[in-house]
Order: sequence, then C-alpha cells, then structure tokens
Amino acid sequence: MRALPVEPLAIEAFEPFGHVIEPDAAREIRLINGGTTTRFHDIADVDVSAAGGRPLISIFRGKPFAFPVAIRMMERHPLGSQAFVPLSDRPFLAVVAPDANGRPGAPRAFLVTDRRGVSYARNTWHHPLIALEAVADFLVIDRGGEGNNLEEADYAEPFTIAGPA
Amino acid sequence: MRALPVEPLAIEAFEPFGHVIEPDAAREIRLINGGTTTRFHDIADVDVSAAGGRPLISIFRGKPFAFPVAIRMMERHPLGSQAFVPLSDRPFLAVVAPDANGRPGAPRAFLVTDRRGVSYARNTWHHPLIALEAVADFLVIDRGGEGNNLEEADYAEPFTIAGPA
Repeated sequence: MRALPVEPLAIEAFEPFGHVIEPDAAREIRLINGGTTTRFHDIADVDVSAAGGRPLISIFRGKPFAFPVAIRMMERHPLGSQAFVPLSDRPFLAVVAPDANGRPGAPRAFLVTDRRGVSYARNTWHHPLIALEAVADFLVIDRGGEGNNLEEADYAEPFTIAGPA
Repeated sequence: MRALPVEPLAIEAFEPFGHVIEPDAAREIRLINGGTTTRFHDIADVDVSAAGGRPLISIFRGKPFAFPVAIRMMERHPLGSQAFVPLSDRPFLAVVAPDANGRPGAPRAFLVTDRRGVSYARNTWHHPLIALEAVADFLVIDRGGEGNNLEEADYAEPFTIAGPA
C-alpha cells in the first residue's frame, strides 16, 4: 500500500479535475427576484450532450467508508461530467487522478466539507463516491443516454488514506 | 387579499407543475459502486435544450420571507425547467399555478420540508424563491443560452399566505 495524504479542497487545486460547487466559484453574481435572491451563476459545467446525452438529476445514497480507506481502482465517464452536492452536513472524499496513457495516474484525495460539492469533468479519473461518518445523500447531475459512459481501471498497487487530515 | 392555504408537499399533488426531488420520486433504483451506493435514478426532467439552451448549475441565496407572505405576481420560464434543492435544513414555499389563457390561474402553495427539492416544469407559473426562517442557499439547475426565458404576470388581486400550516 502506498500512503495517500488528504488535502483540503481549494477551487484552484481542483481545476484540473473539474469544478468546486460553492458560491465563491460562481462565474458571475447577480441580484434577482426584486433583491430577495442572490444568484451565484454558472458554477460548474454540465457537459453531458456527447453522443445524444441528456442531463439527469438523481440522488446517490452512500454508505460511509471507514479509515483507512483503500484506493484500489478508479473510474471515468467518457461521455459526461458528474456533479455531487451533499444533502447533509457530513464531509466526503473526492479522489481524482490525471490520465497517464489511458490509465489513472497518481491520485489526489480532497476532503470536501462545509456543504461544498464537486463536479468531475468529462473523462476525468475519480474514485466512486466515498461518504464519511454516516449514510449520506448527494444530489447528482450527470448524463443519461446511449453509449458506454463507464471505464474502470485498477491500480497495480493500491493507495491507502489513513485518515481525514 | 385572498387567503391562500399552505398544503404539505406530495409527489402526486405536484405532478401538474413539475417534479418533487427526493429518493421516493426516482424512476428507478439501482445498487452501484460495488454495493456501497444506492442510485435513485432520474428523479426530475431537466428540460433546457429548447432554442439551443444548456443546463446550468448555480446557487441561489434567498432572504427569508416573513408571514404573512403576499403573492402579487408569478413568473414562468418558456424555454426551460428550473430545479431548486435546499442546501440547508430549512423549509421553503413552492407557490405554483396552472395557466389560464396565458396568465397565472389560482395559485397553490406547498410547504417543502425535510431537504426535499422541487423542479418547476418548463413554462409553469411559479413565484420566485420564498425562503423561510433564515437566509438559505439552494442548488439550482436551470437553463442558460439565448432567447427570452422569463415571463412575469401580476395578479389583479393578491393572495396572502398567513403562516406555514
């Protein structure tokens, strides 16, 4: 097992892998509805139209992982982005990796707290949902439609995340 | 002022206006990610592709309304659906109306609790966001792109919502 440290989530650090979903990441801020609402506009790309795809709204209910968490495999979605926004106050782990010749490269693990979400860009290697502490629901915006939208790859030697910090 | 009672939100009662966003409203339930995640699949239509539109992920931060709440106007989005999912535990009001010859008909007010969300179907009359109790953030999935996607209409005589129940 190779040790994988946990990083705090920062908007810039996550840019190679997709978008952080939080008000500070909005591309524009508008006051609407007669001043009663602030719109933090267009935070994360929804890139799901490849091969005739359409956006889906779903809820993922994740069982909590216990530390140490082993990262043995990664997946990616060649046809669409996938956004996760927690519907609880609990943290989760976003584990991502750059591509290395069609395989996942060295992973990075981000601890996502404070009700922030993440969107994995289309075709970006990531680990399946890692909820922490308790069963937790996440709103998911991803792609529906025909075509193979899942690729999986195992690491030759797994990584291990010892704890949340 | 005409009195407008508040109804509890039920999946079936909301069907003429869009979709309730909660696990029980999923069109299909799948166990994924090696059994660690339950996917409540395809809960609410994201109907945003009219006139070259694209899906947007934004956050709306709503100031709380105090009771009695006056319903003086309604709006609708001719080119796209609009989904609201609360990022807090607080309730909100979803006020909707059938169309009556191009104007909003008699409104109905639903109290949305327990972290449920709603999606207003394309071209469905609804009141702008009504947060309750405190400033609250909502994840919003709606439409970006060219074209006029907003229509507003005043009621000749306003309605008033006395309280949450």
